[in-house]
Amino acid sequence: MTQIEAYIAEHEQRFLEDLKGWLRIPSISTLPEYAADVRRAAEYAAGQLRSIGLDNVRLIETKGHPLVYGEWLKAAGRPTLLIYGHYDVQPVDPIELWQTPPFEPTIRGENLYCRGACDDKGQTMLVFKALEALITTEGGLPVNVRVLIEGEEEAGGESIEHYVRSYPERLTCDAAFICDTHMPAPDLPALISGLRGIIYTEVEARGAVRDLHSGTYGGIAPNPFHALALIIAGLKDARGHIHIPGLYDHQREAPAQEQRFWQEDPLHLAETLREEMGVAQLSGEPEYPPLQRIWARPTLEIHGFVGGFSGEGAKTVIPANGKVKISMRIPPDLGLKAEEVYRLFERRVKELAPPDVEVTVRKIHAGEGVLVSPEASVIRAASAALKETYGREPVFIREGGSIPIAALFNDILQVPIVFMGFGLPDDNLHSPNEKYSLKQFFRGVRTVARFLQLYGAGA
Amino acid sequence: MTQIEAYIAEHEQRFLEDLKGWLRIPSISTLPEYAADVRRAAEYAAGQLRSIGLDNVRLIETKGHPLVYGEWLKAAGRPTLLIYGHYDVQPVDPIELWQTPPFEPTIRGENLYCRGACDDKGQTMLVFKALEALITTEGGLPVNVRVLIEGEEEAGGESIEHYVRSYPERLTCDAAFICDTHMPAPDLPALISGLRGIIYTEVEARGAVRDLHSGTYGGIAPNPFHALALIIAGLKDARGHIHIPGLYDHQREAPAQEQRFWQEDPLHLAETLREEMGVAQLSGEPEYPPLQRIWARPTLEIHGFVGGFSGEGAKTVIPANGKVKISMRIPPDLGLKAEEVYRLFERRVKELAPPDVEVTVRKIHAGEGVLVSPEASVIRAASAALKETYGREPVFIREGGSIPIAALFNDILQVPIVFMGFGLPDDNLHSPNEKYSLKQFFRGVRTVARFLQLYGAGA
Repeated sequence: MTQIEAYIAEHEQRFLEDLKGWLRIPSISTLPEYAADVRRAAEYAAGQLRSIGLDNVRLIETKGHPLVYGEWLKAAGRPTLLIYGHYDVQPVDPIELWQTPPFEPTIRGENLYCRGACDDKGQTMLVFKALEALITTEGGLPVNVRVLIEGEEEAGGESIEHYVRSYPERLTCDAAFICDTHMPAPDLPALISGLRGIIYTEVEARGAVRDLHSGTYGGIAPNPFHALALIIAGLKDARGHIHIPGLYDHQREAPAQEQRFWQEDPLHLAETLREEMGVAQLSGEPEYPPLQRIWARPTLEIHGFVGGFSGEGAKTVIPANGKVKISMRIPPDLGLKAEEVYRLFERRVKELAPPDVEVTVRKIHAGEGVLVSPEASVIRAASAALKETYGREPVFIREGGSIPIAALFNDILQVPIVFMGFGLPDDNLHSPNEKYSLKQFFRGVRTVARFLQLYGAGA
Repeated sequence: MTQIEAYIAEHEQRFLEDLKGWLRIPSISTLPEYAADVRRAAEYAAGQLRSIGLDNVRLIETKGHPLVYGEWLKAAGRPTLLIYGHYDVQPVDPIELWQTPPFEPTIRGENLYCRGACDDKGQTMLVFKALEALITTEGGLPVNVRVLIEGEEEAGGESIEHYVRSYPERLTCDAAFICDTHMPAPDLPALISGLRGIIYTEVEARGAVRDLHSGTYGGIAPNPFHALALIIAGLKDARGHIHIPGLYDHQREAPAQEQRFWQEDPLHLAETLREEMGVAQLSGEPEYPPLQRIWARPTLEIHGFVGGFSGEGAKTVIPANGKVKISMRIPPDLGLKAEEVYRLFERRVKELAPPDVEVTVRKIHAGEGVLVSPEASVIRAASAALKETYGREPVFIREGGSIPIAALFNDILQVPIVFMGFGLPDDNLHSPNEKYSLKQFFRGVRTVARFLQLYGAGA
């Protein structure tokens, strides 16, 4: 047992007490009546960072809830790691489904139950404790760190985005570490190697100058919803293939290791998703493995239509105009920025539009994907740390959705991102009876401490 | 001048006063607060029928507003004509746009302004006055008549439908005459030779058991709205062609006279519609003339979608299910009943449905079209009467929409229908400043009287 491991083992109870104190503060960021609690939780985090021995610890005021910042920049010649977490939590409804009060941390069996136990106070606290263990036993950290904790992750994250975009020079670093994800199974360490980006659009078709009666005009009137259906059918076929010229022109091959994982799906992730959906067969491009389809292939989804008659019964109207919400997920391997995909999409929509309607395309929002190279030194360090703690190589998985903070760090700070979290699939995030595995918590402390050592040593 | 024409000329003022008395009663059938007025208008109509000399005049009570009935069945060996009209009117909003109070009949120039002046008190009254002129001057009618006037035409017409379906034997007749339509231009008499039928449906597609996040599931999830778009695109192409096998198998040729009218469109009706729509080009099947497309070709229209995300902004949901409202217009020449078209539609929708969604089709309502043969003796009589009064042959036009009462008479009573009305396109039906041309009113009295004479004579 190393000196650090001994320190961690010796202080387990206090670590848990420090976490419980934080968990008792109901820092629900979306509900205005909890604003004072949210601030108390920020102050609690700042107190932790000070007691660990970080410098320059402070609350950064924003238009919303404060950010918490601290740094330790005394490891000359060593890389700097930006550590991210969040101290706000989800609401607790439906409260009657909680077995114990949502803000009373309770240990049952091998788990600690409380809102935020995992997401993200538990995961953030284990990083704090790794820093404490290193500073206390070694007199300092093996790398430089900046810690930036936000209080609006569950409420849109506007303040941190504004801060990162406004002051990137205050966050200079060589890599970012986000401890807010989970592992696919208790003994299976994982690192996230990619996130898809997104464009979210609204396509509008306009026909006549006013709504028309289908009896009088049916046969000579433009029908905007029919036009939208033709456009959609032209964009994606029944087998999930997207027909947008240029979309695949810059596609890059994923690393062989990932491709093998997608093909083999040793964790049966696709089967789990199929069961969750309650469908007999998975949809989508049949020639690609399901994991590739959700992680590394572009998608095009219809979310809903706006306008026309959508009430009960019948109304014989040919609507003057109609809109449809369409988004695309953009895997980072595609080699295109979100804006580039948007332009290809817009061009294709206009090309598919029947001549009797006027079609406009509007971008509602867009976000870049993130690709993490397994070869980056920070990833190799995280991977090696996980292997030491869990006794096996981590798998590289992806997220099909976006994590806005990751895209932000990637985009503005231009650094590789380590997504290494210790949550488990049954942690009930955002649901009643959220919990965190105590074993995962302490394994997490050891893993993160080891990760920083290896990263500092240039592993 | 015939004896009848002399009678009409002599009594013009009283005819108008009789109409004005009826018009002053605000018989708005959709607004409950006018229920007593609606009944007064029914009684007024019954009073007219009694004073003309009809037999068995009475109000027929219904769940809604009463029907008014009267008969004259003394023309032994002559055909029986069922005469239809309605005594209820539309609401008057926006009232501030009326130049004179909506229920104060006012003559300005050559028109009588009032709600109901045309639709349908004016048109019904002119039929009453034709009956009066015939009975008074000839001591009887040249045909048997049954008069049935309803008070819910502007409110769904449920009561008359129930009555006709329940007691068809009380309405035995050889033809029906509906005086509730208009002529395309003041000097251009017209008869309606056909109405399209309709099926109105809702198609639902169901995918996963619950709404899904497009980041996590996009690529393997069924998307019901995408499925609906594929179905719609398969039903009708960009050039307006409907692809439903069997739809055209029983199509009949329209009479050469009608085909010529569609081709030549001497009244420039298509151009008028194009201007009303505010479009550069008419949509629809380019190989058919526009009038044929709106009158004698089947159509398929999308009215709107139900479900999914239709709010402002963005929500990355893959909806569990979605619906679309689709209707078809069915020209009577198609040779198919509405139910037959519905079955072909349903079969085709299921055939087009991608395998990853479950699709159900629901019929919301259906109505049959009506085809009137120009060769029927009652039509020849109406045509000859119009030619005498207007000095030119009437044109045979059609209505692209349905007139439920006509389909009902056609379907239940199985008799040919004469749609002969004297309204004009600028009569402002359902709008402020509704009016009726005095000239048309008196021409109408003469035409209807002559029509009955000719029909009775077996013209």
